[in-house]
Amino acid sequence: MVDAVQLSLAEGHDLAMRGLVRSGISPDNARAIADVMMSAERDACQSHGLFRMPGFCTCVLSGRVDGAATPVIEDVAPGALRVNAQKGFAAPAIEAGMPHLIEKARTQGIAAMAVTHSYHYSTLWCDVEHLAEQGLVGFAFVNSRAFVAHTGGVRPTYGTNPMAFGWPRPDGPPLAFDQASSIAARGEIQLHLRDGKPIPEGWAIGPDGAPTTDPAVGLQGAQLPFGDYKGAALAMMVELLAVGLTGGNFGFEALQEDASDGGPSEGGQFYIAIDPARLAPGGVGAVLDHAETLFDFIEEEDGTRLPGARRHAARQRTPKDGFEIPESLHTRILELCGETG
Amino acid sequence: MVDAVQLSLAEGHDLAMRGLVRSGISPDNARAIADVMMSAERDACQSHGLFRMPGFCTCVLSGRVDGAATPVIEDVAPGALRVNAQKGFAAPAIEAGMPHLIEKARTQGIAAMAVTHSYHYSTLWCDVEHLAEQGLVGFAFVNSRAFVAHTGGVRPTYGTNPMAFGWPRPDGPPLAFDQASSIAARGEIQLHLRDGKPIPEGWAIGPDGAPTTDPAVGLQGAQLPFGDYKGAALAMMVELLAVGLTGGNFGFEALQEDASDGGPSEGGQFYIAIDPARLAPGGVGAVLDHAETLFDFIEEEDGTRLPGARRHAARQRTPKDGFEIPESLHTRILELCGETG
Repeated sequence: MVDAVQLSLAEGHDLAMRGLVRSGISPDNARAIADVMMSAERDACQSHGLFRMPGFCTCVLSGRVDGAATPVIEDVAPGALRVNAQKGFAAPAIEAGMPHLIEKARTQGIAAMAVTHSYHYSTLWCDVEHLAEQGLVGFAFVNSRAFVAHTGGVRPTYGTNPMAFGWPRPDGPPLAFDQASSIAARGEIQLHLRDGKPIPEGWAIGPDGAPTTDPAVGLQGAQLPFGDYKGAALAMMVELLAVGLTGGNFGFEALQEDASDGGPSEGGQFYIAIDPARLAPGGVGAVLDHAETLFDFIEEEDGTRLPGARRHAARQRTPKDGFEIPESLHTRILELCGETG
Repeated sequence: MVDAVQLSLAEGHDLAMRGLVRSGISPDNARAIADVMMSAERDACQSHGLFRMPGFCTCVLSGRVDGAATPVIEDVAPGALRVNAQKGFAAPAIEAGMPHLIEKARTQGIAAMAVTHSYHYSTLWCDVEHLAEQGLVGFAFVNSRAFVAHTGGVRPTYGTNPMAFGWPRPDGPPLAFDQASSIAARGEIQLHLRDGKPIPEGWAIGPDGAPTTDPAVGLQGAQLPFGDYKGAALAMMVELLAVGLTGGNFGFEALQEDASDGGPSEGGQFYIAIDPARLAPGGVGAVLDHAETLFDFIEEEDGTRLPGARRHAARQRTPKDGFEIPESLHTRILELCGETG
């Protein structure tokens, strides 16, 4: 077990703010980014929490990402808007666009938001939960640098390309899932490499296209989509929505970008919000109550779990108990804050 | 090899029309249904072609589905419409709603269509291809009677719940995929049963929850989602969109309906159409050309194939060569046409 440092969510947020701002990220942008990282720590999703701090800071320090960018909103159609992140991080751009997306969905019944020229480095479930907390059904799609092969192929073609979906619930947090198009998260393979453990067969292929259980070989080769050709089709769909419709870089194009600073690649995000109150017959209350019968049917069975159940359980715990980060990460973050020893 | 009857697409359409109309389906509705079945035969997708004829006819003959229903369109929001199929088949309802969905997508940037009180028994790829032929990006979702277990569960909870996605291409047919949330189509398991062959492990579980390779046991138990919990999440999403937003029956609710006539269960469909010309920067030409670079990148590799490639190849062949159906099916259809002996 590695040595760990215990922090409250407020302490974590303060720490994040100090490091982000010192790296050249404007206070407003830093707050949006720190909020997302702390949502992840609150939900016990370490891979999107303070673990990401060095990546956020170094790609601003290297000059590749503009930490002080101010997002520009363009109203492109009654049901659609575009947010130009201006080569900044996605979190502030999404936050700036969200109220417009929500307003459009409520007046039009359905609306879309394209986020362009952005560096996405956070979760999608926060965004669809935010929409669902406003009573809206939400979709989110984001691509990344290519790591995943097309079925039958060898070379990295798609990002790990998550899609997220959120549904409002009358009591308690929304139903939300946020799942990569690859079988395994890239970070999982990196953790296996760090710990000297083989990866399960089916996660990745080597540069020669042969299946591998060696994480180093898999990271040099390509990850595999979940569910074979069906996951590959979803990965392609995410590229087309998140990049095709937004004018960003496809995952295979982003490979040409030098991201040796460890930060994210330039990509795009695409959001859809639907107002069930406008769409469904019988009113929104009837719709949401009906959906609860499905959730009840699922949860009645032993051994089943709704998406997000682990996150929601953590959310009860972390506001009181805080969370832990490895001491090595804490030290690194203190360096980024200029607060070393 | 079973004895087969060779038909041209026109002969197949005529045959379908005669049987559908004789079963009590109005000529307009029969034409919409025959069009969909012949699109499937044209694309060498036998499972959605004339194979479905008896199911269409018998559930009208049994009085469960209204073959003469006239769909009613409700304009519910600037970006959304609802089509009430009035307990008829989905194909005429979708055909009636499509021009409105297309018009709304073009003026609003994005639009949605909910189809309610319908019996869906056809493909989704035809619908998203139709949208894409109009220059629109399309999604389609439909549920069915429950056949698929939630991850960790045993009982049928979701329909096989396909989702389809279509993307316009500047030359040639659109890119489209249409994939079930289950690993295997139900018809595939039925074919294994008919042929006395075991099914691959992972397709289904028995009523006791144990994995099975016996197709009869799998049909009594539950099918499994593709890609484990990720496919289950998609199956749930499809239920929420196709039923939750439309006011239909969830797959587990449809189990209570008597469908012993072999026809489809009552469910719902949900469509989204997006106009890239309104959304994407640089104009629609640039967007579609950019997407072609992704398709080229995929197709450059040996061993890869774009979704729909097999359908498009068949589409070159069947208008000249026609298609085959088993003699037993041909005989059954002639009976439905009242043309036996």
